[in-house]
Amino acid sequence: MPMTITEKILAAAAGKDSVKPGELINAKVDLVLANDITAPVAIKEFQKIGVAKVWDKERVTLVPDHFVPNKDIKSAEQAKMVRDFAHSQELTNYFEVGRMGIEHCLLPEQGLVGPGDVVIGADSHTCTYGALGAFATGVGSTDLAAAMALGETWFKVPETIKFVYNGQLGPWIGGKDLILYTIGKIGVDGALYQAMEFCGEAISQLSMDGRFTMANMAIEAGGKNGIIQPDEITRQYVEGRTKRPYKFYTSDPDAHYAKVYEFDVAKIEPQVAFPHLPENTRPVSEAGGIEIHQAVIGSCTNGRIEDLRLAANVLKGNKVNKKVRLIIIPGTQEIYRQAMHEGLFDIFLDAGAAVSTPTCGPCLGGYMGILAQGERCISTTNRNFVGRMGHVESEVYLSNPAVAAASAITGHISHPEEVL
Amino acid sequence: MPMTITEKILAAAAGKDSVKPGELINAKVDLVLANDITAPVAIKEFQKIGVAKVWDKERVTLVPDHFVPNKDIKSAEQAKMVRDFAHSQELTNYFEVGRMGIEHCLLPEQGLVGPGDVVIGADSHTCTYGALGAFATGVGSTDLAAAMALGETWFKVPETIKFVYNGQLGPWIGGKDLILYTIGKIGVDGALYQAMEFCGEAISQLSMDGRFTMANMAIEAGGKNGIIQPDEITRQYVEGRTKRPYKFYTSDPDAHYAKVYEFDVAKIEPQVAFPHLPENTRPVSEAGGIEIHQAVIGSCTNGRIEDLRLAANVLKGNKVNKKVRLIIIPGTQEIYRQAMHEGLFDIFLDAGAAVSTPTCGPCLGGYMGILAQGERCISTTNRNFVGRMGHVESEVYLSNPAVAAASAITGHISHPEEVL
Repeated sequence: MPMTITEKILAAAAGKDSVKPGELINAKVDLVLANDITAPVAIKEFQKIGVAKVWDKERVTLVPDHFVPNKDIKSAEQAKMVRDFAHSQELTNYFEVGRMGIEHCLLPEQGLVGPGDVVIGADSHTCTYGALGAFATGVGSTDLAAAMALGETWFKVPETIKFVYNGQLGPWIGGKDLILYTIGKIGVDGALYQAMEFCGEAISQLSMDGRFTMANMAIEAGGKNGIIQPDEITRQYVEGRTKRPYKFYTSDPDAHYAKVYEFDVAKIEPQVAFPHLPENTRPVSEAGGIEIHQAVIGSCTNGRIEDLRLAANVLKGNKVNKKVRLIIIPGTQEIYRQAMHEGLFDIFLDAGAAVSTPTCGPCLGGYMGILAQGERCISTTNRNFVGRMGHVESEVYLSNPAVAAASAITGHISHPEEVL
Repeated sequence: MPMTITEKILAAAAGKDSVKPGELINAKVDLVLANDITAPVAIKEFQKIGVAKVWDKERVTLVPDHFVPNKDIKSAEQAKMVRDFAHSQELTNYFEVGRMGIEHCLLPEQGLVGPGDVVIGADSHTCTYGALGAFATGVGSTDLAAAMALGETWFKVPETIKFVYNGQLGPWIGGKDLILYTIGKIGVDGALYQAMEFCGEAISQLSMDGRFTMANMAIEAGGKNGIIQPDEITRQYVEGRTKRPYKFYTSDPDAHYAKVYEFDVAKIEPQVAFPHLPENTRPVSEAGGIEIHQAVIGSCTNGRIEDLRLAANVLKGNKVNKKVRLIIIPGTQEIYRQAMHEGLFDIFLDAGAAVSTPTCGPCLGGYMGILAQGERCISTTNRNFVGRMGHVESEVYLSNPAVAAASAITGHISHPEEVL
């Protein structure tokens, strides 16, 4: 039976020749993940199960990244619970403050996820790893607890929607623009419980970092997962990095898709998602010069080295507007180090930006850049819900790193070419 | 009439030939300072006074450093109030996120305070600037508001205690050890409302950074101010940096002191202040290998370049203990940049430390390293009161940066020589 890449991965994990959309399966997982917000709940549930040890201490991965370095006593208690559990279980892949990063930047970088994997994480943006040709999805902490004990979980096989991106990407257009554009077209429930398969000429040309950004935001269209067929770019990324054996799955040419969208990327401008939903997208030329007070460049969506390079290209020789705070947050310690060595930090500091240690921080209203009443932030993060980054009367505008950097300079939402 | 340096500066500011301890004076101030916690209160009081503009827009200095980049909505609202006031008053010396630093590291660095100045700040560690031979002291926000309007304030002239440090500093001994040792000897109320004048051979040899550390903690002995007579080291620091004219005052040889302490620094080991008071000092050899969970290197006390170099010397080639979080916080953007260029960040990252953007953060239990119940932190900060850095059942141990770095490596309070 012809299958999509998502179906093939799930079939293999379920030990079956084939699966079809709607089918309930029990599947082996290759890696489970939780963070400092979700792991405490999962650990409590795990302890109720009554098994002493996790299924595999190499594959239960805990990353304290949301509110660490601890923002307050409550987050300190949560981080402590995760830490104590990790040490008592002798987990190989527990990442402490100073040795960590944002989970969805960190795991691929550290070679912990690879093509063909089934990964579940108690975090909605676990779908990021689909960029490598893995099946990766967010689950609740209770489901995660069961998988921590068993190394398997259940899924309803999703239908797949195919998104074909034709043509060549213009300047200043990256994965963020493609995914925002897509969500703008189909809406935040446009792929509800469906696999979003991204393909086409523009995807083939997209770097791994751009692909991570796209898969990362599949959940913002309601997708069960986002996925990109692995290719030569994938191979270059995983070779010598990914620690377990991996397998490249591809969709059969005659696989069934619930729907197929085709986009001509040459017509796509840098996108800005207006408050308060990621689907409220407009081309930056129609953003109307909205005044901003803060710009954030970072997160599991856009905190990778390519994102920081893009921001630096725009910031170089410019100064952050005196009424704007620009906060730059490298996704991991490795990205931090690389950006520093490439001279990007010099550009950021010269421009008047603050550079943070890796953290999710402001993206979810945690810390490191929370908004007051009436403040507006342009952000490379993934969600602009009401109050997401602070006060219920603050506003978040989502964009790519170049637009965020340009806006930090002018003080209003701007196309990068305004400042170059 | 013979006078101490403190008396001379106050006499000049009061427009008098002489003043004596206990006298109430009205004095011109050269600079007033508030931060994101204290400025909002001062601004509200200022607005009640009914004058439209501050006394001098070059000399009212506002530094948001305690809870910024904003840790939560409340701190965002406070920072916004300070920012709005600064912009509406067109203050020259308002320092935004990305262009700022910890106030008491930033003001000397930016040349805003100099020898002979009278500086008041709505922050208890304003006494730091005494290291330059200035009279600097913390005041309440209401007094600050009046000074923002008038450019003057009242003082009761303090008695002066003289602290003479004889002999040569041993290895690993710096300003932090001298001041902790002193507080250990005289207690946290040992200099209540008195000027602490630090002098002697060891002070003459102490760098500006070490002197800032000493003056900074005068308040921890109850001192009204800490002060060091300016000398060649001071001159080298202020020349080409300090923006207003300055004057070197010195104590008369026959000035009256309420008390004189003499210490032989050759006998002083690195000091550790045990919970829950800075006076609970012990030599590190008697610290008994207390297990720690976090180490913080930073703050207005020890977040300067020399402090970071010292930490790097100890950390180089070593790894932070896997059960310890080491958080390093450069005091200003300039210190951040310099440490990065000197290769110190490489050492910190290689060791497994997190490097934060400048902030007071954890020192006062704000964010960026808050402690859970039962956790212990060794910290280069200035206060180890109950719950200072988080949970009421957490503990803070104060030390110099080398001891903090060594302890981060071993996981227990350690002399630097343990790891070298």
